[in-house]
Amino acid sequence: MPTKADEALEQRRQAARAACQTALFGHGPVQPGAELAALAELDAGAVADRYGEGGVLAELEAEISRLLGTEAASFMPSGIMAQQCVLRVWSDRQESPRIAVHGLSHLVVHELDALPALHGMVLERLSDEERQPTPADLADLPGRLGAVTLELPLRDGGHLLPSWDDLTAFAAACHDRQIPLHLDGARLWESTPYLGHSLAEVVGLADSAYVSFYKGLGGLAGAAVAGPDDVIAESRRWQRRHGGNLLTLLPYAVSARAGLQRHLPRMAEYHEVAVELATALSDAGLRITPDPPHTNAFRMYASVDERDVNARLLEHLESTQEAISAYWQGADVPGWSVTEFTVGSATCDIGAAEVAKRMTAVVLGSLGT
Amino acid sequence: MPTKADEALEQRRQAARAACQTALFGHGPVQPGAELAALAELDAGAVADRYGEGGVLAELEAEISRLLGTEAASFMPSGIMAQQCVLRVWSDRQESPRIAVHGLSHLVVHELDALPALHGMVLERLSDEERQPTPADLADLPGRLGAVTLELPLRDGGHLLPSWDDLTAFAAACHDRQIPLHLDGARLWESTPYLGHSLAEVVGLADSAYVSFYKGLGGLAGAAVAGPDDVIAESRRWQRRHGGNLLTLLPYAVSARAGLQRHLPRMAEYHEVAVELATALSDAGLRITPDPPHTNAFRMYASVDERDVNARLLEHLESTQEAISAYWQGADVPGWSVTEFTVGSATCDIGAAEVAKRMTAVVLGSLGT
Repeated sequence: MPTKADEALEQRRQAARAACQTALFGHGPVQPGAELAALAELDAGAVADRYGEGGVLAELEAEISRLLGTEAASFMPSGIMAQQCVLRVWSDRQESPRIAVHGLSHLVVHELDALPALHGMVLERLSDEERQPTPADLADLPGRLGAVTLELPLRDGGHLLPSWDDLTAFAAACHDRQIPLHLDGARLWESTPYLGHSLAEVVGLADSAYVSFYKGLGGLAGAAVAGPDDVIAESRRWQRRHGGNLLTLLPYAVSARAGLQRHLPRMAEYHEVAVELATALSDAGLRITPDPPHTNAFRMYASVDERDVNARLLEHLESTQEAISAYWQGADVPGWSVTEFTVGSATCDIGAAEVAKRMTAVVLGSLGT
Repeated sequence: MPTKADEALEQRRQAARAACQTALFGHGPVQPGAELAALAELDAGAVADRYGEGGVLAELEAEISRLLGTEAASFMPSGIMAQQCVLRVWSDRQESPRIAVHGLSHLVVHELDALPALHGMVLERLSDEERQPTPADLADLPGRLGAVTLELPLRDGGHLLPSWDDLTAFAAACHDRQIPLHLDGARLWESTPYLGHSLAEVVGLADSAYVSFYKGLGGLAGAAVAGPDDVIAESRRWQRRHGGNLLTLLPYAVSARAGLQRHLPRMAEYHEVAVELATALSDAGLRITPDPPHTNAFRMYASVDERDVNARLLEHLESTQEAISAYWQGADVPGWSVTEFTVGSATCDIGAAEVAKRMTAVVLGSLGT
């Protein structure tokens, strides 16, 4: 049961968040009215799709296929839906309900066991460790498999990517066993600078991929699956069964297209600023992982009590309307706390040095000293 | 294989539709940019929901529960998703995969067998006839049932409603057998004038209901399920598994709220104009079913060849930018064609007499005579 003090704190947090004007992380706070107005202006003359066909949606799907170098793409309301649809197609074709996954993947951690509950799939774990899976992990899963999934980066492992060589070796191991390789690319756009290869080159190693339009691209929501024509056509039928075939997906399609325009060209910059910021934070006494970061996001650890740091973040937000970071949680080591930090356009606009200065002042409690 | 002539015709149709300025049916053509701009203005100061919590979404859900007289409601991207989520909850609680449905219901006709394919449910048909199901139909399905569904109105039966007495008798039959009754209320808002009872009175006869925010309410998309607190809370978990829990549903929530403001107060008027229009069309030689219409929508039959009438509709659209009706299809009786007509704000603005005049002129080919 939450106490009255907990409830009062939660109310303070909500009020402070609603009043938030700027943030050091991501692309800054979303202003709903301004966002909708911007979308209206962007596509004032656009034609709406009708139940998934035509209009802005068709144009966006063509753009996604072109970027990812695939035959086809289908835009869907969410990644949870997108991945189930395409994995079901692979599983049916392979005649195996066994899907190889990382134990820390979104499919395992954040989806309430949707793959088993809705599709009768069996999740076979490649690894539970904070690292990308290897050909040896795959070899430990003998027999027929419906598909192998790879999350780029592994978010709950600390936004970790494989090297290009490790990635190609893993893809070859899937190929050798003739098992379809599917990329969970929720943050694929953010992964190309470190991998040193284009989107099409990365996706070209796999049989299908899912990409997301919020997160790094800053859209309102939305996802897509990309792959061969017939696989995507079959995925669309599962999309309908899931309830993802709306009268129109116009606002999300417009928002996704805006995200591709606004943020895709800046992914290398977001990564560079993350590397620069990680160095500045390390110099100030924080610990970073991975160091240097593989993408625009990393974990940071500080030798502070979680309640103290969260209280300081809230006081700072209330007095300045500036959000410093997401909430911190206690780390394994007593007295240390941890959070995730994502670099976006807001971070870049302020600059790594200034962000590090403001953040450490609040996080380490040295404000005014 | 489509011929070159087919393709040329389809291109003409698409171009004509894109240029459409007014329509005799529904709420008129959607102008995407204008629609998004209107939404931005409506809720410029609104707070966005985050993964289904808070903001405009929470306010909308409270409004739906209040209107329908239920403990709780959950807003979802689509009706296909909404109904699966709540029917799965009932089915699990009843420990029966057997769901009683009408053979012409949306669940059977338009959803690619999603209930069996995703939830392992067995669809038990109450009837395949163009009428609402009866207690006798239910008695023909002995044994344990997960839920009974009732589509109000039965769209593919010609937008048919039961009388209030028949509805209460059917609900009592479900209640007597202790089987949850779920209302497919995609057009429930449109059904209250004929039933002569409030939304809360209609939904009060059942255990749960689904409602839609496009169709009569003219929103961009979106649906909701409403019912007891614990059933809706459990439905939300299936919503997440389906992939219906987006970072924000803001545009659809804003659009749904606008629909409730703009169109809900006019449902009696839409029904009255449908009745008036049906009379005028009958007088001009068309046949209407049901006559008088139960809701704002009805089927109309004309003694014309489908190709002729569709060609005249297209020519009219090209020369005037005015859409007369949806496409016509050949009826059972040779030489007769049929289509569905839905009365909305656009119809009311022009008036039943004038709509009947313009429509019969084009449909019956008497333009200029």
